[in-house]
Amino acid sequence: MKNRKTLQEYKAGILAGDRAVLGQAITLVESSLEEDQRLASALLQEVLPHTGNSLRLAVTGVPGVGKSSFIETFGKLLLKKGKKVAVLAIDPSSSLSQGSILGDKTRMEGLSLDKRAYIRPSPSRSALGGVGAKTREAILFCEAAGFDLILVETVGVGQSETLVKHMVDFFLLLLLSGAGDELQGIKKGIMEMADQVVIHKADGEALEQAKRAKATFENALHFFPPNEKNWNPKVILASSLTGLGMDQVWETLLEYQEKMKSSGFWEHNRAQQRLFWLDEQIKENLTQVFLKHPGIQETLKKERDLVQSGKLNPSVLAERLVQMLLGKDAIERAKGYQ
Amino acid sequence: MKNRKTLQEYKAGILAGDRAVLGQAITLVESSLEEDQRLASALLQEVLPHTGNSLRLAVTGVPGVGKSSFIETFGKLLLKKGKKVAVLAIDPSSSLSQGSILGDKTRMEGLSLDKRAYIRPSPSRSALGGVGAKTREAILFCEAAGFDLILVETVGVGQSETLVKHMVDFFLLLLLSGAGDELQGIKKGIMEMADQVVIHKADGEALEQAKRAKATFENALHFFPPNEKNWNPKVILASSLTGLGMDQVWETLLEYQEKMKSSGFWEHNRAQQRLFWLDEQIKENLTQVFLKHPGIQETLKKERDLVQSGKLNPSVLAERLVQMLLGKDAIERAKGYQ
Repeated sequence: MKNRKTLQEYKAGILAGDRAVLGQAITLVESSLEEDQRLASALLQEVLPHTGNSLRLAVTGVPGVGKSSFIETFGKLLLKKGKKVAVLAIDPSSSLSQGSILGDKTRMEGLSLDKRAYIRPSPSRSALGGVGAKTREAILFCEAAGFDLILVETVGVGQSETLVKHMVDFFLLLLLSGAGDELQGIKKGIMEMADQVVIHKADGEALEQAKRAKATFENALHFFPPNEKNWNPKVILASSLTGLGMDQVWETLLEYQEKMKSSGFWEHNRAQQRLFWLDEQIKENLTQVFLKHPGIQETLKKERDLVQSGKLNPSVLAERLVQMLLGKDAIERAKGYQ
Repeated sequence: MKNRKTLQEYKAGILAGDRAVLGQAITLVESSLEEDQRLASALLQEVLPHTGNSLRLAVTGVPGVGKSSFIETFGKLLLKKGKKVAVLAIDPSSSLSQGSILGDKTRMEGLSLDKRAYIRPSPSRSALGGVGAKTREAILFCEAAGFDLILVETVGVGQSETLVKHMVDFFLLLLLSGAGDELQGIKKGIMEMADQVVIHKADGEALEQAKRAKATFENALHFFPPNEKNWNPKVILASSLTGLGMDQVWETLLEYQEKMKSSGFWEHNRAQQRLFWLDEQIKENLTQVFLKHPGIQETLKKERDLVQSGKLNPSVLAERLVQMLLGKDAIERAKGYQ
């Protein structure tokens, strides 16, 4: 990265809440250059004591549900309540990243013009260490910079939601009221992750339909067993045009935070999340080295088809590949420890 | 393993449909002895051309739903139709493994006394390479031995269902009609995996209640988006006491098989499953070696708490651990290939 600052310059800038320095630090995290990685890692360790004080919130919904306008309207409410708001995107296809960042800023004009807000598009897919891990570290930097609410935007159709679930405190699902097929396009399991379902664009002629959809969704949520945190997701009608429901979303957030903190789930959940990311990073690092190994690449290319067509048993090829990475001895030794 | 046979003896026995030899071969697969593993792997490769011709069926449901009696009744129907039936369990806590195998055979008397059936409890959790992979290989041996239907029993409350989903053609979920809380105890996401929901014990006084539950479940299924295979799961009332629904279950299986074979999904799905198991085995082998590494174990013990409490960034520890396994050079090299 050009114009790299010193560790202390980054640290001072972030802790002072300087959005430009914050942005540069996140770029450092996303860089694939070895030197940037080292610096980012050291910086993160430096600011770690200043992290953890925000409310981390996932905002998920399929394209067209109005994530940008929801975040704009809800975000402005948060600013009015004296909160500092950061918005991060995790999917390349999320609204934040469609087109230019200029486009995003136009769509979130109220937020982007305010000094108490920070908007950041998603890292590119080629980021070293996985997009999830990068976004999680960006959250930590935003916290160190003093942001009170971190909104992480995902599109709700991929695997990002499972990852994002492991980095936020609260999962908000945006839906539209449709004609019977309300859940079309929502990836299986997403509904179950929701701490709150918001039926968006509940205005004008769509308001009556949204009211009916509310009952349907409440019924659907009833089918999911109670979770370990003992929280029943609510269904809320909202509109970015009329402002309907925005206060209720905020109040629900506060209620959730209070309940989870007093039950101990809040900190328990975050501790579990940190261990999840340890596992993820280990897997990611191992996979990276594995897949880049020239001999493994070549063998996979030649023999993967044999496995796929049922001519070679998967475990035979798996063992051979792992031996290429670690040496025959490593596997034998590990088996010896059983 | 004592009294180990030669490769050719195993092969000949399995292809002749000898249940005793089949059982010994599966024991070989589950063994943690290096020599058994080698032999099992070679044997599997030998019989591979004779596999793939069965209908692989998951039978899932919480304890108490009557999996044993369902399998007994449905299995006898299959025998009557001239089919050979194998039953494998995947969970240590499934009915097949609770108590002794004698107990299981008593509960599945009709099946266990018939030469055209084969019943096998689940491998112990200490099996090398993961229980899922072992069960999958047991399926292949059963197919080579000429079984037409392989029923894989799981308890529906753990992670086994995700694994079993990747080894079967058809996923059958047994439920009971209860008072409103029908899905309690069913792990999130299981309902969505079902190709067929069977409301079991629909007899006597419970019949009316089961009929009402049917409508409720059908309504719940309606909330899941259509899947790539374009199949709508049916809800069927069944009783192992009266035999209600058993024919319908069978007919649905046939209908499914026909539809999926003609659409190409059947073979597509199996090819995807083979690649899934290649990935699983690679991960399993890597994890095994990783976790057995004495230096890694020691470091994890000392520093995992620092990660959990938020004092150390997960990626820092992850990188250090992976370097212990692969050497610093390996990671640097891999990054160089980006």
